[in-house]
Amino acid sequence: MLNRMRCSMALVWLLWLVTVQFEILEALTSHTRPGCEQGDQPPPSTRVNTTSRLASFRAALAEIDGSFQAFIVGSEDAHDSEYPTEYDQRRAYISGFSGSSGTAVVTMSSAALWTDGRYFLEAEQSLDCNWILMRSGLTDTPAIEQWLNSQLLNERSNVGIDKSLISHSSFLSLQKKLAALSQHHSLLPVDSINNPVDRSWTVGRPPQAKNPIHALDLKFAGVSWADKIKALRENITSKGAGAFVVNVLDETAWLFNLRGSDVRFNPFFLSYAIVELDRTRLYILDKDTRLTANPTDPETKVKLAEHLQTSASGTCEPSKAREGTCVEVVEYNPIKVEEDLQLIAQSKQVWITFSASFAVYSAVQNSSLIAKSPLAIDKSVKNKIEREGMQRAYNRDSAALIKFLAFLEKEIKEGRHWTEVTAGAKLDEQRKKLEYNRGLSFETISGYSSNGAIIHYRPLNHTDKKISTDSLYLLDSGGQYLDGTTDVTRTMHYGNPTNYEKECYTRVLMSSINLAMLKWPEGLYGRQIDAVARYQLWDVGLVYRHGTGHGIGAYLSVHEGPGRIRIVQTPSASDEPLRSYQFFSDEPGYYEDGEFGIRLETVVMTSHFQPKYDTAKQLFLEFLPVQLVPFETNLIELSLMNHNQVKWLNEYNAKIRETLLPLLTDDVLATNWVNARIKQISIEPSASSTPTLTISTVLAIVTVLLALH
Amino acid sequence: MLNRMRCSMALVWLLWLVTVQFEILEALTSHTRPGCEQGDQPPPSTRVNTTSRLASFRAALAEIDGSFQAFIVGSEDAHDSEYPTEYDQRRAYISGFSGSSGTAVVTMSSAALWTDGRYFLEAEQSLDCNWILMRSGLTDTPAIEQWLNSQLLNERSNVGIDKSLISHSSFLSLQKKLAALSQHHSLLPVDSINNPVDRSWTVGRPPQAKNPIHALDLKFAGVSWADKIKALRENITSKGAGAFVVNVLDETAWLFNLRGSDVRFNPFFLSYAIVELDRTRLYILDKDTRLTANPTDPETKVKLAEHLQTSASGTCEPSKAREGTCVEVVEYNPIKVEEDLQLIAQSKQVWITFSASFAVYSAVQNSSLIAKSPLAIDKSVKNKIEREGMQRAYNRDSAALIKFLAFLEKEIKEGRHWTEVTAGAKLDEQRKKLEYNRGLSFETISGYSSNGAIIHYRPLNHTDKKISTDSLYLLDSGGQYLDGTTDVTRTMHYGNPTNYEKECYTRVLMSSINLAMLKWPEGLYGRQIDAVARYQLWDVGLVYRHGTGHGIGAYLSVHEGPGRIRIVQTPSASDEPLRSYQFFSDEPGYYEDGEFGIRLETVVMTSHFQPKYDTAKQLFLEFLPVQLVPFETNLIELSLMNHNQVKWLNEYNAKIRETLLPLLTDDVLATNWVNARIKQISIEPSASSTPTLTISTVLAIVTVLLALH
Repeated sequence: MLNRMRCSMALVWLLWLVTVQFEILEALTSHTRPGCEQGDQPPPSTRVNTTSRLASFRAALAEIDGSFQAFIVGSEDAHDSEYPTEYDQRRAYISGFSGSSGTAVVTMSSAALWTDGRYFLEAEQSLDCNWILMRSGLTDTPAIEQWLNSQLLNERSNVGIDKSLISHSSFLSLQKKLAALSQHHSLLPVDSINNPVDRSWTVGRPPQAKNPIHALDLKFAGVSWADKIKALRENITSKGAGAFVVNVLDETAWLFNLRGSDVRFNPFFLSYAIVELDRTRLYILDKDTRLTANPTDPETKVKLAEHLQTSASGTCEPSKAREGTCVEVVEYNPIKVEEDLQLIAQSKQVWITFSASFAVYSAVQNSSLIAKSPLAIDKSVKNKIEREGMQRAYNRDSAALIKFLAFLEKEIKEGRHWTEVTAGAKLDEQRKKLEYNRGLSFETISGYSSNGAIIHYRPLNHTDKKISTDSLYLLDSGGQYLDGTTDVTRTMHYGNPTNYEKECYTRVLMSSINLAMLKWPEGLYGRQIDAVARYQLWDVGLVYRHGTGHGIGAYLSVHEGPGRIRIVQTPSASDEPLRSYQFFSDEPGYYEDGEFGIRLETVVMTSHFQPKYDTAKQLFLEFLPVQLVPFETNLIELSLMNHNQVKWLNEYNAKIRETLLPLLTDDVLATNWVNARIKQISIEPSASSTPTLTISTVLAIVTVLLALH
Repeated sequence: MLNRMRCSMALVWLLWLVTVQFEILEALTSHTRPGCEQGDQPPPSTRVNTTSRLASFRAALAEIDGSFQAFIVGSEDAHDSEYPTEYDQRRAYISGFSGSSGTAVVTMSSAALWTDGRYFLEAEQSLDCNWILMRSGLTDTPAIEQWLNSQLLNERSNVGIDKSLISHSSFLSLQKKLAALSQHHSLLPVDSINNPVDRSWTVGRPPQAKNPIHALDLKFAGVSWADKIKALRENITSKGAGAFVVNVLDETAWLFNLRGSDVRFNPFFLSYAIVELDRTRLYILDKDTRLTANPTDPETKVKLAEHLQTSASGTCEPSKAREGTCVEVVEYNPIKVEEDLQLIAQSKQVWITFSASFAVYSAVQNSSLIAKSPLAIDKSVKNKIEREGMQRAYNRDSAALIKFLAFLEKEIKEGRHWTEVTAGAKLDEQRKKLEYNRGLSFETISGYSSNGAIIHYRPLNHTDKKISTDSLYLLDSGGQYLDGTTDVTRTMHYGNPTNYEKECYTRVLMSSINLAMLKWPEGLYGRQIDAVARYQLWDVGLVYRHGTGHGIGAYLSVHEGPGRIRIVQTPSASDEPLRSYQFFSDEPGYYEDGEFGIRLETVVMTSHFQPKYDTAKQLFLEFLPVQLVPFETNLIELSLMNHNQVKWLNEYNAKIRETLLPLLTDDVLATNWVNARIKQISIEPSASSTPTLTISTVLAIVTVLLALH
């Protein structure tokens, strides 16, 4: 799946997203709001009336000490999450626009929402006339600080933002930008208790998510949480620090071998953790209930308190806390976390990461060490149990996808009615029945024909297309399993593709294979190898405006850092070189606006290998394919491919035969579907001085010889 | 040629150099000085006695106001030049070590010299026992600031450095590092007039270089200096600045269409320039003589004063200065430049570049704008006349190299005695006879067998090897011509190469071709495409520890920024994306320590091209080969190459046939040598479903048919 994360690596993923261009929308200017002027057509009925919400919001804003004239409401939760909980969707509430990416800025007299090209249309249909739509990326769209500076004329005005809902680096950067424009206006942090959305959103707000938290059995996690705490403490010591703050949710889930369902598509639970050398604290909501509740997951045998070796109220004996065999569980409350951090910072250096909120940063400011998270790296390098689990999960998932694709092809070719929505729903339903499945890892992207060209497409009823035999069908989907997180994209054509479509598909396949075949000396960043996945598209002028690969978690996030494979102009601070035993998507694509989209996403694992020659005296890495779903023979133009690519394809298909076919014995349709796609292709010798002959030459020779005879 | 530049892009090239590893030297510890302890063998006679030099130096140091306890003497001149003049070789003088890279630090009681692994041996043989040899890159070698901190114990000591001989960024960085280690010691800038080397080096110092400065005719430069000044002024205006300081020598030479010979291998002259919107000043040594001297270059028809439209003493009428048709010529003197800059900075913002010295930086500090040089970009994008000139220069140069290689092969095969030194000297001599030649563009690298594996090798009498038929011979050379600067590397084997040597050569060739074939969307940096030139070496575990390509000037520096093609972990501030009409080396290699070296360097030019499909709606770039010297057929293992690579090779050879053969009609030996290497290779169809037959199959069929008949 393409990366949608806003979040723990916000800057990084943002770079990914902003590479997407939206030329067709450039005709619009950023202030056009159809239906908002006298004489206009009536506005669409989908727009959300925010008049009273804004009035209450402004009243709450006026009550904060510090004479705030404006307030910024971003999409972020306190954990820089890709998918904030419904309770945390403050920007969606105040603006009415619920797309995944956007920033609302409300002054006492006006309101504006910034979003990117993926959402221009949706935002136009959601925002009422209280709102100015700011189309990010268009040349006449002001930056937030510019607009604020133009709105807060001739006044000494403070602009507020909830300090727990923005990373410290983003806060400081915006503060600096605003200060550079005006000496009169300042961006100031606001305590979350005074957040005007929280104070005014009193009716209809979804409750905070407090779903059960389950222990992940060692047979899935591979390493006990006590061992992970031990390793983390060694890391803390080696940095000369005394504590580490875990503020992103996948790191808490990984560190304690716990999974929840507070967040969409991700098995996370709202939490903070503070790990010291003699004490470990985990902050969760509704701790007393959750600690002692009976597990509802059939694969979890112990209650949360038992798993964490803690009392029913979450307390630890000091000796067990010291030795790292008991976790103190504390009620989740941002204010409490800040107070605890302030106390710790009085005597110890506190290690926080680049994604820590401004609230966390402020609490420890005078004794903080800001550095990459050691958990991010440890989590990304999968242990043996996780690797085996991932492979099993991918095998199950691939088998299910194959069965579905075989079924869908038959249905479409027989003229049955399937749409993007119904096909996606059917696949989702089948995936959810698989062993260890715990839902989807993201919203299925099911895009036929021109919808496939929309890179971050999600099928909605009003965009839904019938899947037919005259164009390409792109299907990007994945599941969460106790033993792994999956992600796979294949593109099909159920009729007769044109030569051009075949060339595009084949070049995407060649690009994907080129990356999959790559071997490289350890130590390189993904940004240094990304071009290998692009050059055979560039050869004929084709480009794709997204990254080539993202990391993948083991029953965690489908988008996992810190390694990633992208072309970037400016490296991010959290970027890391690729290491052995990390899982990455390998997903080049090609998208023709208004016509079709092609993406081929195969998940691969990094692994050391012994090169033919070892004169370099250094470790080398390669990618091993983990996910085994055949490519479409009717879309491959073999004459474009070189021998090494065909060899890779043959080996991949042999692996499918060996690994996947045995899982499909109950399904003749699927078996036939696979067999039709994995035939070994004969490889001819490459260019050499050994002469070979074409059939026509041979026939000519034979004819002559026969005549002479 | 591999990049040796220390200079205008010091940080960048440094990154290039430090990637070279010197494992074999790790056994040495950084303080071992053989011959310096009682009982040691006597030291080598090559060591330079610096006792009296150091005494005079320390006396001069003691005289500077500010109680300096130590002074740093780097390799840099005031212009961050790759090759400082002999007058400027202060570090070589004070230490006795004359390698291109090194930093001397002298305290009142000790002296130490830092250099990198290329020079460990040479430094050991040059430095007397007054010196500690600091082997940069070894784990127990302290950084300069660490050593200073350990030497200047318990005192409040100042460390000096000549402020005109270090870039402002390097100065500030070192100052910060020293301050971080100690509150007692400070790095302070010293005026060049107080430089203790300059004050104590009174005997035997070479005079300052003041060789003739020649106007470069428009038929070579393509654009008049007045037009370049006009464009620069527009750039200054667009930045909101009032002046630009030209501090690197290739930019002055390019801007004024002037060339000199003050510097080794580069047609430069010592100079500064300050361009304002109404005035242009050029600072040169001995201005009165040089302005009015008769040109000594037969291709220059005008005196310097005429070329610059200035008076015999270098003055301009204000109106001509304003319209940019007269250049004021001022006597070169760093102090004068600083004073002039201070005056300008009182009323204007002064644009300086990242390479500006701390002296220049200090002079304009309060009203400076630090940004990339606009001249660096304009200079790198060659105009039509320059492009045509470069191609002609490369054709002449290639023809001469071909003649030499054909001759040398015959000589070696006939058993005549040639060594690295004599072969290199013969080639140099032939090159210097060519039309428009103005010397070499760098010191010829002529390395046989294990010497070829030393990446920055220069043949010396005591390392010189006989060229024979049992190993590889690497020859990297280039010339300066009025119409272009050349650089070319080929590797030969005059006997029977092993299969391993053939595989290594072929993979280097494939790597070179892969880069040469690359097409890419405009806007990428070289660091984003470098991997394309490496992956087919990585496939079997081979690496080369240097960049793949550097920019090349037009009768300027053979190493020209700002674009470059390298794998880097951290991009440099001066880096720029590749643009159309830039010239780059394409020079992958493979070096086996103690055995052999292979490098294939072909100069290519970037150019826009129309891709097969234009759906991306953006400009694409490709590389066109400029330099035409055949590769070695006896070292190519065709079976490793893919069809596209063979196709490229065929096209390259066709171009040699068409362009170079006509230049060789007077030389049968060379013609035959070329013809033996440019035979078209038959390309078979790639893997596909079309069956083809091998000869043996055909014979079998024919036999059967004949039998049946």
